[in-house]
Amino acid sequence: MAAAHDRRVEAVRRSLREAGLGALLVTHPPNVSYLTGFTGDSSALIVSADRLLIVSDFRFDTQLRDECPTLERHIRPSDRTLPQELGEVVAKLGLGRVGFEAAGLTVADQWTIREGVGSVELEGTSGVVEAIRVIKDDDEIAALRRAIEAAESAFRSWKEAVSPESDEKEAADALEFALRKAGAVGSAFPPIVAVGPRAALPHARPEPGVRLGSDGFVLVDWGACMGPLPYRSDLTRVLATGKVSPRFEELYGVVLEAQRRAIASIHPGAKAADVDAEARSHIGEAGFARFFDHGLGHGIGLEIHEAPRLRGSSEETLRPGMVLTIEPGIYVPDWGGIRIEDDVLVTPDGAEVLSRLPRDLDAARDGLLGR
Amino acid sequence: MAAAHDRRVEAVRRSLREAGLGALLVTHPPNVSYLTGFTGDSSALIVSADRLLIVSDFRFDTQLRDECPTLERHIRPSDRTLPQELGEVVAKLGLGRVGFEAAGLTVADQWTIREGVGSVELEGTSGVVEAIRVIKDDDEIAALRRAIEAAESAFRSWKEAVSPESDEKEAADALEFALRKAGAVGSAFPPIVAVGPRAALPHARPEPGVRLGSDGFVLVDWGACMGPLPYRSDLTRVLATGKVSPRFEELYGVVLEAQRRAIASIHPGAKAADVDAEARSHIGEAGFARFFDHGLGHGIGLEIHEAPRLRGSSEETLRPGMVLTIEPGIYVPDWGGIRIEDDVLVTPDGAEVLSRLPRDLDAARDGLLGR
Repeated sequence: MAAAHDRRVEAVRRSLREAGLGALLVTHPPNVSYLTGFTGDSSALIVSADRLLIVSDFRFDTQLRDECPTLERHIRPSDRTLPQELGEVVAKLGLGRVGFEAAGLTVADQWTIREGVGSVELEGTSGVVEAIRVIKDDDEIAALRRAIEAAESAFRSWKEAVSPESDEKEAADALEFALRKAGAVGSAFPPIVAVGPRAALPHARPEPGVRLGSDGFVLVDWGACMGPLPYRSDLTRVLATGKVSPRFEELYGVVLEAQRRAIASIHPGAKAADVDAEARSHIGEAGFARFFDHGLGHGIGLEIHEAPRLRGSSEETLRPGMVLTIEPGIYVPDWGGIRIEDDVLVTPDGAEVLSRLPRDLDAARDGLLGR
Repeated sequence: MAAAHDRRVEAVRRSLREAGLGALLVTHPPNVSYLTGFTGDSSALIVSADRLLIVSDFRFDTQLRDECPTLERHIRPSDRTLPQELGEVVAKLGLGRVGFEAAGLTVADQWTIREGVGSVELEGTSGVVEAIRVIKDDDEIAALRRAIEAAESAFRSWKEAVSPESDEKEAADALEFALRKAGAVGSAFPPIVAVGPRAALPHARPEPGVRLGSDGFVLVDWGACMGPLPYRSDLTRVLATGKVSPRFEELYGVVLEAQRRAIASIHPGAKAADVDAEARSHIGEAGFARFFDHGLGHGIGLEIHEAPRLRGSSEETLRPGMVLTIEPGIYVPDWGGIRIEDDVLVTPDGAEVLSRLPRDLDAARDGLLGR
């Protein structure tokens, strides 16, 4: 992936020139990994016009040699913290105005760096690396496909491993294990396994003692985190655990059609807010507007929530190489929630749905029924 | 635990009075949980002399009612971010000088809060809540005991579930599963399962294809994260996977004696640096000083690394209620590493070792041998 890293670093350098900055301190760990391929942590990267230098510690020396053989390393002494060392290194490099990542540095660490840099002028920046990360290159799309395949393969094994008698916590633990068996490092985020009315709580945590079969259906929101770099998938399915009710069929149909319309509206140049509106207006026309109270989706990549955000207030325009979740839902208090979530690549012509698990009513109906 | 929370909040208010602050914005998630019992995230707490107010969003409204029925809630609208809302809420409360957690807030979020607060003076603080958290109360000690027991019970089942033929990744995944079966929410941190020479890498990650039995012994560093609040244990054992060598016996003996001496030196009033020196001087006298290149231990609690730090440069003094890891090690490049880690409570009289797994040479020798 060395060529990809070179292109990414060059893109940062272009941003630096446009902003009149001599260098950028990259402290947000996913950004350090993105620009170098380094899979460790506790390290920061200095990008200037002619230098690319990582400040790390002895624990990662061997790993850096292996993973980033051409990257310049500065190993800090173990009696100095990373921000202390960063300040001193920056002071010595003579880089002029230096940018830092305002959303990737605490106020306390910023103080320490400022103490160290002496007369160097530090300036907070926003989203320099994130603006590059929003468009996935071929290596990243391949990594996201692997993360999606692992999540899907795990889901299939998991359906065989659990039954309506399993409780939410057992089922979530079994899903974690299935993901790892499928080659993932682990879950992309703590999975949601929520039965019936609990599926109406947007952040339900798996509870011991709540059996999957106890209330008609179960909502599962999960994803795989793959190595070596932690690319993440994000999927949701609802599975019946008994005969489905007419109300379930109705709501499921509305959510599925909302998702279909949203996906059909994706193409380069489409506004994120308009894609959100496609799903939202369909749910609204069916009479459930107030039961869909979150955005339609978000970018995925090295983080589970990335740009762009798909919601009414989004000002972003879709471009080829973006990878998005499309996840409309209807949440009826005390009854439950239906959400269907897939991962979609914006292509030069339109959209490719990367996730392949069946999502029609039959798939939900077959769910864990009769098992 | 309501009484414990009241005591903790009162301690924060004392600090505010001493610092002449009208309120503290608590944004570091473990600190929010510590002061309220709330187990969710994406929320901030405002502590003033007469108010205790959490700013959260609709996803956590039900959970907050359940977990913190007496806590005042402010639910932000979904089109505003937490820092935007925090700034506006603080502006309206008329609190005078307001402290924020400098190590628990990004520069970008601080900017947003500053925009919102208008003329209120914001001042960065360091370690206000952490200074209270360093002494564990009875509820916390009980939670840590549960986290240690779960880790130990999981370790025993795990030893039965793996064999010298298992690879590091399979073994780490099996350990994660055993922890959950033992009642944990999950691992306290990504566990280390490192065979032979790989045990000399302080941050080895479990590798597929590296079999436990391939190099004489395996180092396992793991812990349990218990719910509802995520208290964390942290243990390390080394297990032989074949006949142990004289060199293994020698190094194991030195590390074990270093740990014994360090634990024997723990009592209220002991300096953290002196406890570190007890272990370090024993390892040094045995001729291995340069192979023990990290601190002796650290506090554990809601985070896996907390105050106090036990190392040569520590200025802290031990007090009853601190819970510490004691984890001396010897790491010989290309040969391997031995580390023995236990969790210790500072008591009014001395120390209580909370972890009970056998740690003598026989326990290491029996390891995974002949299984």
